Amino acid sequence: MSVGLGCSLDYNSIAGIRLAAVKSKIKYPDQLDLVLIELSEHANVAGVYTQNAFCAAPVALAKAHAQKFCPRYFLINTGNANAGTGETGNVNALRCCQAIAELAGVSAQEVLPFSTGVIGEQLPVEKILAATPRVFISLSESSWVEAAEGILTTDTRPKLVSVQLEIDGKKVSITGIAKGSGMIKPNMATMLGFIFTDADIESAVLDELLCDAVAKSFNRITVDGDTSTNDCCMLVATGKSGVSINKLSAHDYGQFKAALESLFVTLATELIKDAEGASKFITITVAGGASSLECRRVAYSIAESPLVKTAMFGKDPNWGRILAAVGRSGLENLDLQSITIDLGSVRIVSGGGVDPSYLEELGQVAMQKEEIIISVSLNRGTFSESVWTSDLSHEYISINSDYRT
Amino acid sequence: MSVGLGCSLDYNSIAGIRLAAVKSKIKYPDQLDLVLIELSEHANVAGVYTQNAFCAAPVALAKAHAQKFCPRYFLINTGNANAGTGETGNVNALRCCQAIAELAGVSAQEVLPFSTGVIGEQLPVEKILAATPRVFISLSESSWVEAAEGILTTDTRPKLVSVQLEIDGKKVSITGIAKGSGMIKPNMATMLGFIFTDADIESAVLDELLCDAVAKSFNRITVDGDTSTNDCCMLVATGKSGVSINKLSAHDYGQFKAALESLFVTLATELIKDAEGASKFITITVAGGASSLECRRVAYSIAESPLVKTAMFGKDPNWGRILAAVGRSGLENLDLQSITIDLGSVRIVSGGGVDPSYLEELGQVAMQKEEIIISVSLNRGTFSESVWTSDLSHEYISINSDYRT
Repeated sequence: MSVGLGCSLDYNSIAGIRLAAVKSKIKYPDQLDLVLIELSEHANVAGVYTQNAFCAAPVALAKAHAQKFCPRYFLINTGNANAGTGETGNVNALRCCQAIAELAGVSAQEVLPFSTGVIGEQLPVEKILAATPRVFISLSESSWVEAAEGILTTDTRPKLVSVQLEIDGKKVSITGIAKGSGMIKPNMATMLGFIFTDADIESAVLDELLCDAVAKSFNRITVDGDTSTNDCCMLVATGKSGVSINKLSAHDYGQFKAALESLFVTLATELIKDAEGASKFITITVAGGASSLECRRVAYSIAESPLVKTAMFGKDPNWGRILAAVGRSGLENLDLQSITIDLGSVRIVSGGGVDPSYLEELGQVAMQKEEIIISVSLNRGTFSESVWTSDLSHEYISINSDYRT
Repeated sequence: MSVGLGCSLDYNSIAGIRLAAVKSKIKYPDQLDLVLIELSEHANVAGVYTQNAFCAAPVALAKAHAQKFCPRYFLINTGNANAGTGETGNVNALRCCQAIAELAGVSAQEVLPFSTGVIGEQLPVEKILAATPRVFISLSESSWVEAAEGILTTDTRPKLVSVQLEIDGKKVSITGIAKGSGMIKPNMATMLGFIFTDADIESAVLDELLCDAVAKSFNRITVDGDTSTNDCCMLVATGKSGVSINKLSAHDYGQFKAALESLFVTLATELIKDAEGASKFITITVAGGASSLECRRVAYSIAESPLVKTAMFGKDPNWGRILAAVGRSGLENLDLQSITIDLGSVRIVSGGGVDPSYLEELGQVAMQKEEIIISVSLNRGTFSESVWTSDLSHEYISINSDYRT
């Protein structure tokens, strides 16, 4: 199951970026599962990585390589996370980097490895090494759809989003791909995301743009509250458009930042629309909070409630579960009388109980929609936050109780 | 689904306690749904109540009544939680108390109301009022099984546990009933529990005994992380055995406390064994922590992980998910190299990855059992904590997406 039609898959190539995806039979015999992305020399790279303490071998290696060298290649495999694999996992991740480095004539530290899939099994490194010459000679500027497909695991469709804007009469493009369908919870990044632009952006600015965009997108989604050991989100600026984005030109910077963040939000919400077993796309907005943090606490208390999520799956306007989730969010001195809760445009809660205007039929109509907005107003401050989540369905259980079989 | 055979339902009556359960058609036509419990005069009562900010009308009323008066009656209905019902809910709860008070010739403040069931619908108070004479004349010292049945909602079987011990050559009994199957998460109490003893215990000591027992039992279980608006746990001492339990006699006090806590743990774990859709009963023990709090954080991170719970349902020793849950628990400076994780007697993780002795077949055998122990050792301190949980199955989704239909 999934919500909506997915991305259009239209894209603008990014000058300085070449990609390839091949089948290397890591887990399934007939699936694109190994992706190589080449960055032009002098491209700047920013990255955010999982905060899970059991961070996977490739994540640790990617962080270490990116700190010291200017990356030239991203090597991404699916079907195996190379996490919980101890020292052998580190060695295997490095061997994959070395193989690409030899083919490309760069150092192994200029290759960043990324893995996603089952945790706790050793990487089938021979299969990957056998496929590296093939993936290297397949690099092209137009393999974006293949790369978007090649990084998927339980996702049912590729996520590829692209925007173009004009700055100083010149075109600037941003194109990104992402994957993630389960084990999704905001904690730095929470999936794999690779976003590229041909703008020229210095490293410090790129870092800031990435952090801000992730905070408003990938860090505001949850499927099941589980944080992956392998999350990474990388933002690359090749500079090939000849357009420089910096804070000296506030207008251009603002325009680029807005376009970038919009693209991040589209990618992040596409992950939720294609979340494991999703039949609903749910936006939870909490307004009137005394701080951003308390808005998020209430929003996640709702978004991570299995009872709210199963009611959404059952199309049951069982709003008492939303009220209970607000109540358990742990905020001090909540004035229950002044809280309102709306389901779409239907007011369901006010004055500490059901709103006088509420009719069960109105709730039922609201629950039929594929995309549902739950709005909570705390009426005690000026902050607001939005979080996106999916429902909890039989298909989620099927996918995750059968995952490795 | 449920795990094991349930309680034996053998019990010792408690002198000074009479009970009755009748069918009042609150939600279903043919179900015991209204329970009355009479306490002898001068019985001492201790209570703990939900910490959900949206606490239900009966909970607020029960707390207020118990603070000022010595309770004589507990009136418990299922099928409707009388939560999120505003001022009308308060009025309805009080009307039920008044009806019992008139029949019994006591004040309404000596009656404590308890409700459990769907949130957000007004209590069908006329049905309850019509049934109060019937439930009042049915009071007897031997209706324990009926009362245990009469408080159930989605539970599949009654929870009734009884112990007897000898103190100073005299018999002392403790008998308790509880309900709870979903919306279960430790936050004070997390269900309805009513436990009675014929020992003579002064109020301050009774409060302390209840808090300690709840901390080790009902506050260590989770089904879905959702906290109810209606949780209460009441401990009653009638004094009719003539045996006084106080701290002056350390041996007797210790013996009674141990028996009481054992009974609480049995009731709490019975809730989990009969949790919504449960096919597994899972004990998570985290040892070697630097504090009790950090042990609980790791234990709940595992216990509330949908991915761990679905793997348990699928009997898949996908231990990477346990490792990921430990990693995301947010403990600072975890030394991954020194953490061990065992599944039953099978060591699965050591040295930051899979233990050299681990074989997939061993994990598969461990996962076939109905009762599973996950042991984590952090190896950085002397504290340990245990938490009990269930798996996450298709039946949980079915129960909770169909709840109100």
